[in-house]
Amino acid sequence: MGHVLQFAERDPSLSDEQAKPQIEMLREALLMKQYERLQKADQTLLIVVAGMDGVGKGSAINTLNTWLDPRHVHTLAFGKLSEEEAMRPLMWRYWNSLPARGQTGLVFGSWYAPLMKELGRKEPDPAKIALYTHLINRFEAQLAYQGVQVLKLWFHLSAQAQLNRCATLLADPNTAWRVSKADLKVHKQFKHLRNAATQTINLTHRNYAPWVVIPSADQNLRDVSLAKVVLHAMDKPIVPRQVKEPHAFPFRLNVPTATLQSPPPVEPVLDYDAELLHWQGRLSCAVRSKAFRKHSLVLVFEGRDAAGKGGTIRRLTEALDVRTYDIHPISAPNAVELARPYLWRFWRKLPRLGEISIFDRSWYGRVLVERVEKLISRAAWQRSYEEINEFEAQLLANGTAVIKFWLDIDKDEQLKRFKAREETPFKAYKITEDDWRNREKWTAYQRAAEEMFAQTDTHMAPWHIVPSKDKKAARIQVLRTVVETLESLDEHMISLNEPALSDQVSEQV
Amino acid sequence: MGHVLQFAERDPSLSDEQAKPQIEMLREALLMKQYERLQKADQTLLIVVAGMDGVGKGSAINTLNTWLDPRHVHTLAFGKLSEEEAMRPLMWRYWNSLPARGQTGLVFGSWYAPLMKELGRKEPDPAKIALYTHLINRFEAQLAYQGVQVLKLWFHLSAQAQLNRCATLLADPNTAWRVSKADLKVHKQFKHLRNAATQTINLTHRNYAPWVVIPSADQNLRDVSLAKVVLHAMDKPIVPRQVKEPHAFPFRLNVPTATLQSPPPVEPVLDYDAELLHWQGRLSCAVRSKAFRKHSLVLVFEGRDAAGKGGTIRRLTEALDVRTYDIHPISAPNAVELARPYLWRFWRKLPRLGEISIFDRSWYGRVLVERVEKLISRAAWQRSYEEINEFEAQLLANGTAVIKFWLDIDKDEQLKRFKAREETPFKAYKITEDDWRNREKWTAYQRAAEEMFAQTDTHMAPWHIVPSKDKKAARIQVLRTVVETLESLDEHMISLNEPALSDQVSEQV
Repeated sequence: MGHVLQFAERDPSLSDEQAKPQIEMLREALLMKQYERLQKADQTLLIVVAGMDGVGKGSAINTLNTWLDPRHVHTLAFGKLSEEEAMRPLMWRYWNSLPARGQTGLVFGSWYAPLMKELGRKEPDPAKIALYTHLINRFEAQLAYQGVQVLKLWFHLSAQAQLNRCATLLADPNTAWRVSKADLKVHKQFKHLRNAATQTINLTHRNYAPWVVIPSADQNLRDVSLAKVVLHAMDKPIVPRQVKEPHAFPFRLNVPTATLQSPPPVEPVLDYDAELLHWQGRLSCAVRSKAFRKHSLVLVFEGRDAAGKGGTIRRLTEALDVRTYDIHPISAPNAVELARPYLWRFWRKLPRLGEISIFDRSWYGRVLVERVEKLISRAAWQRSYEEINEFEAQLLANGTAVIKFWLDIDKDEQLKRFKAREETPFKAYKITEDDWRNREKWTAYQRAAEEMFAQTDTHMAPWHIVPSKDKKAARIQVLRTVVETLESLDEHMISLNEPALSDQVSEQV
Repeated sequence: MGHVLQFAERDPSLSDEQAKPQIEMLREALLMKQYERLQKADQTLLIVVAGMDGVGKGSAINTLNTWLDPRHVHTLAFGKLSEEEAMRPLMWRYWNSLPARGQTGLVFGSWYAPLMKELGRKEPDPAKIALYTHLINRFEAQLAYQGVQVLKLWFHLSAQAQLNRCATLLADPNTAWRVSKADLKVHKQFKHLRNAATQTINLTHRNYAPWVVIPSADQNLRDVSLAKVVLHAMDKPIVPRQVKEPHAFPFRLNVPTATLQSPPPVEPVLDYDAELLHWQGRLSCAVRSKAFRKHSLVLVFEGRDAAGKGGTIRRLTEALDVRTYDIHPISAPNAVELARPYLWRFWRKLPRLGEISIFDRSWYGRVLVERVEKLISRAAWQRSYEEINEFEAQLLANGTAVIKFWLDIDKDEQLKRFKAREETPFKAYKITEDDWRNREKWTAYQRAAEEMFAQTDTHMAPWHIVPSKDKKAARIQVLRTVVETLESLDEHMISLNEPALSDQVSEQV
């Protein structure tokens, strides 16, 4: 091991005469390229800045900021988890802060922190290493597919050069403040840290998200290397054809049971008002229980137009404290959302622990309306099944239960409801031309829904097909499903069988 | 006192026969009006939902949600301050969550919570009451000016009716869960709570942001009243001509000393490199000091094109940990920002305690470029001076120091720099046609800047005019000013002389 860092540890250098003309040219080229990318606005560039302490990462980044137009370069610095962050899945804060296409992000304290910390332990836990590695690789693959390039820089030099650099800075009282305690500790642990770095690089180097080691002992060479590497990345983003990354979580598809052709039998409701009150009461208690404080809940409602999503959601929220839930009606993405990967807007809407996010339509639009209306390529929606399963698995790992409902009505029932709506003045707004147009593509939507069930009905986040011709029965069934899930949260969560993530929050630096 | 609530305490009612036809008509009208507003998209409606516990606020709001298209109604519920919120000024979270024009927000646990809590004490503190009242009234006036209507509903009934309501719900095991401990406590404190409510209403009722009491003992009457009031508000938003609200903070303008005609003398820099290192070192220490953890810093950089803002900011950030600062380059507002009041985007960019926000151009664009280029009305920019002073005073009250720099160059110097930039390939991008156009309006900008100094050079957030022909001297002067402010933070902050806000964070429910 260690060979990827060997060249940098020879501390190569470049004379001023060699460096100056190169830097002048590179600087101009970088700026031109940055403007070209801003105009095309089809790719985001994330530059992960990594390396041991005291090797001059900050100085290098200041240089880069001087060369580029800083108005379009965003520093994304992550330290200790904030309260808000600790209540969401591990990758939440990284998703949240993705810059728009055309922009550049400099990432400090990146998604590599947990992996490097684990690799730096005396006895690293192989399960955690595997999990973090997979999370990282899946994340970067998803980004790469959707226009976010990741370039990872490891600034490096020899142990002696690191020591000399600190000593030089310390010798002058005016620069001594630049040397931190962490910088001074590096020398002792150099071999150990190098080993962790080498492993990290080997585990996560991908052609579409490469690691590049920047020799940092000599400022001239460092600057020239940095400029060349960034310019190269800006010039030719690598968009992967097909990425074969293993899943980060051991999830499996359910054996198909219910489909739209054979929905499960619906239980008749004898006394609707009494049942409604009963289940609303249990729901209210379950949400206010102590157990729920360590969990959260994501509810997905999909189904045909007029299937009764709104009414069903209202019966749920009647029993909830307004401070504990949010309803997210999902329609076509806006400009800000279109400038980021598809799942970005859903990541931003995830509940805190103890809270509920209700999605009136959801990320499944990717494999329903966007597929049927041919808004995206076949490859894009086919890839989405895996992305979605992975996304939901990360929620589960965070203690977030995911329940997905398909409210099912047939074509005749829909027609009846459309007509009834058109005749009621305060409901007529619910029927638009889109609804009639969608209706014409009934079979195409049917096919898309069936495939969606087959591909995303996982044992952790199952689909519930709820026959909804009888609205009242459907509402009771949804309420009961939610209540029963909440009342058995701990069993439900154990099924993921993934202890590694549960303690990452407290351990991560 | 007490008269504003008297009618509601008679528990008036409406029969089903009277109510039904009215509700049907109102429902349709509400929906039509909602759509009309969505299309015009010139006004936001915020409905503050208030009242004692156990009077049926939740039920009323569910009804309203049933009537309106819930996809354009946002529930804004505020509970205990989160960690993120506690690190920002009191009004931060309310500013942050403003919906866009055309949308409706239902506000629970609003900006009235601190005032009501204080009024509910045995011995309310008059200073705090005055402060909270002023903060509320100034906030709502600013919103009203800029297209955000605030309608405040107080749901109310007699003490006996409140008790009966709870008893009825408790009697049925299926509804008992709707009654909370807080609901049951209300009866005992009814008079006391009513008194606090009456005072709140009297202190904060304004024609552009009215309080309306909704009698809530009878569901029919409550629903009809609610529908009428909301419909009326949607129909005719009151935009105030001129609001005379006293300032929430005792701030005063500085006696004008420096202007652009007579800038303060600049100290020559003998050894730039040494001075730079010296001040950067002190800056780094000041930011890492224990004292700074209770404070934060906002730096504003304004000045002509090519005055050297970028270079100066870079000399500051070289000394800072990337995790502790953000640079916000400010240009024209985007669509999301234009749909909200002017200061919204700046509220969102405020630093946490212990952190620094650097603004490369700022909210002063309102009284510079937007004024000179006639992008807004004369009334709008004239009103801005007060809004800005109030905004900065709220920052100060939060422990956030505000330092404002005007980097000053004359017309000849600017021309020299423009030409030099055009000749350097990697700087040419900095010169655009806009820059040449702005230059033609030199005198108009001069006049706007002079008036800006006169109106916003306050003793808490002073303007520093920095002669910047000598770039190096300017940088040192800026660094020194920042360092000296940080090193005397406690003195600096005491000058605001406003203890009431300093403990609100911990006391607020």
